Amino acid sequence: MNAGPNFKHRITNNRIMNRIQKLGLIVDESGYDAYVVTNSSNILYYTGTIGGGRLVVAPGRDPVLLSGGLNIAPALDLVRDCKVIPYSRENGNEVFADALLGCKKVAFDGINDRLKSTVEALKNVDSQIVPDLVKDMRKVKDEKEINLMRRAGELADLGMQAIKNFIGEGVREYEVAAEAAYAMRKNGAEALAFPFIVVSGPRAAYPHGGVTDRKLRKGDFVTIDMGAEYKHYKTDITRTFIIGEPTEKMKTIYETVLKANLAALDMIKPGVPGNEIHNKASKIIAEAGYGEFFNHGLGHGVGLDVHEGPGLSTRSKDLLKPGNVVTDEPGIYIRGYGGVRIEDTVLVTENGADRLTLFPKDIDYIMV
Amino acid sequence: MNAGPNFKHRITNNRIMNRIQKLGLIVDESGYDAYVVTNSSNILYYTGTIGGGRLVVAPGRDPVLLSGGLNIAPALDLVRDCKVIPYSRENGNEVFADALLGCKKVAFDGINDRLKSTVEALKNVDSQIVPDLVKDMRKVKDEKEINLMRRAGELADLGMQAIKNFIGEGVREYEVAAEAAYAMRKNGAEALAFPFIVVSGPRAAYPHGGVTDRKLRKGDFVTIDMGAEYKHYKTDITRTFIIGEPTEKMKTIYETVLKANLAALDMIKPGVPGNEIHNKASKIIAEAGYGEFFNHGLGHGVGLDVHEGPGLSTRSKDLLKPGNVVTDEPGIYIRGYGGVRIEDTVLVTENGADRLTLFPKDIDYIMV
Repeated sequence: MNAGPNFKHRITNNRIMNRIQKLGLIVDESGYDAYVVTNSSNILYYTGTIGGGRLVVAPGRDPVLLSGGLNIAPALDLVRDCKVIPYSRENGNEVFADALLGCKKVAFDGINDRLKSTVEALKNVDSQIVPDLVKDMRKVKDEKEINLMRRAGELADLGMQAIKNFIGEGVREYEVAAEAAYAMRKNGAEALAFPFIVVSGPRAAYPHGGVTDRKLRKGDFVTIDMGAEYKHYKTDITRTFIIGEPTEKMKTIYETVLKANLAALDMIKPGVPGNEIHNKASKIIAEAGYGEFFNHGLGHGVGLDVHEGPGLSTRSKDLLKPGNVVTDEPGIYIRGYGGVRIEDTVLVTENGADRLTLFPKDIDYIMV
Repeated sequence: MNAGPNFKHRITNNRIMNRIQKLGLIVDESGYDAYVVTNSSNILYYTGTIGGGRLVVAPGRDPVLLSGGLNIAPALDLVRDCKVIPYSRENGNEVFADALLGCKKVAFDGINDRLKSTVEALKNVDSQIVPDLVKDMRKVKDEKEINLMRRAGELADLGMQAIKNFIGEGVREYEVAAEAAYAMRKNGAEALAFPFIVVSGPRAAYPHGGVTDRKLRKGDFVTIDMGAEYKHYKTDITRTFIIGEPTEKMKTIYETVLKANLAALDMIKPGVPGNEIHNKASKIIAEAGYGEFFNHGLGHGVGLDVHEGPGLSTRSKDLLKPGNVVTDEPGIYIRGYGGVRIEDTVLVTENGADRLTLFPKDIDYIMV
């Protein structure tokens, strides 16, 4: 192959492309003169630095990360695979225009309020917001990412085990969160993937109910939705515990959600549409007579962000691919009564699914 | 006073106005036919419910909270001071238009992407984004809010004390976060105010550096920036510890930041412009020769959100008022070397300032 000036050829001539080079290839193939990455998780994905910046990837040129303010120091220390150009409040627009000099058709992963005036100051540029170009790359995790997510899954399991060991009548919701957070952090989670949800009793009917000082009582459902973050990668797990002896109705609700969770897990493999998996779980819940009480999507992608692609919901147009990591989280929520949700983070493999969160979910195990 | 149909008169005739009534009065005085609150912290502030919704406050009408999806159950259970009208994906636009029927000049606290099409579907409505109307109310905390924030401040102090008891050579950054989070949660914090920052050694030069597995070494600065959340109210505290014996340069840097912190605290009282307080702290750091290494604003308001008004920065146009709660957080950050930040959350009182975070900050105490 010739090693001429054409960007695509130069790149494919190399051994292994880094992520920025892959993006450059896609940008070139999509017919853009440049792509600007602005979202901080995207910046982390491509460059390894924290806090954000403006990564300019233009076929035929060296990629550059423009970095301002508090982000400059980590960028200069941490960035891989591209040059860092610091800018100040005074010269920010100028540095940005320089990096895009001669580019006419420029795509962005997003243009927030802060960037708006900078983009408007560009002359003769047709700016477009094309987030999917980056989102699609991030949906498929590479081996390194999968290894980090496996560890994040183990940490989430450790947190859930700490809850299993601690939870019981008289304990407060915030104490449950305390024990799980401690177990995850002490074992190496550098952060939580998102703020805890610990909803008990009637509060278990709030899928996003946060944490309060409510004391757990016999006969409560207690739903804990949480996740660990490990080297910036997140996982997401939900279990509902039952305090004391459940009623027949509680058992039916729990078993229905579990059946939906397992049926969905069974369907997860390459080529399956995300909406079909949601519909399967939804159908099981509806057939048990609880259709109106499952009112959210079955799952979402997880990675550097706790909500990313692909989606498992009625509106999802994604077909699963190997390397996708998604949640499987059906639920039933009855106002004034309580609710159940069971969730695992699941890796799509070459021919099926591999759970990254393995904490048990059979009813005997979650009765405490 | 007459009790006629005029909204303002009807309201001021009452004993104590609730927050929604106060907002109604301001909306009326500002000449809007209605105000729509959409930000979830603002919804929490006015109605007490979590998750969000669309609160419509129109002078002369009963206020209504429109609630959809997962937010309906908590709204029906928790909302105070207004009626809740549930809506579905199908009738959302219609319910919204109904609530604003006849209103021409409608102000919003914000219009996010999700609301955009709903707003565009309104006929004959002049929509404006006027966030300050609500922001200004939230800047001044009432007695109940101040009591909750005092407790949130105590919890942050307990977290910092747990760090003081634990920190030392060989400990990892994530372990420091683990201990502090556990102490805050076990004592009643339902959440962290924001993700931990534990930056040690050269990483202490990253003001927003997150947490890693780095082991603390003798001679390290270790900056911990964290906060507790109590009944939805947040606090924010930063301390820099020194592992082992500091060099003269380290002492100078620490004492300079402390001097700036104390000088700013000294200025905090009603009537003082936020930018003058920033400039005072900034001047002290510059006079010590570190001007270029203090590159962020001195402080921000805290409350239901960890960043709200009023601001203490060069660009701030706020004059402090009793009931404001602000941070005072000067810092010096030197790339490749490390850094120091010292921060308290401070209540503006009738004639001065009252710290809500009281953890000691003299150099002898933070040397461990």
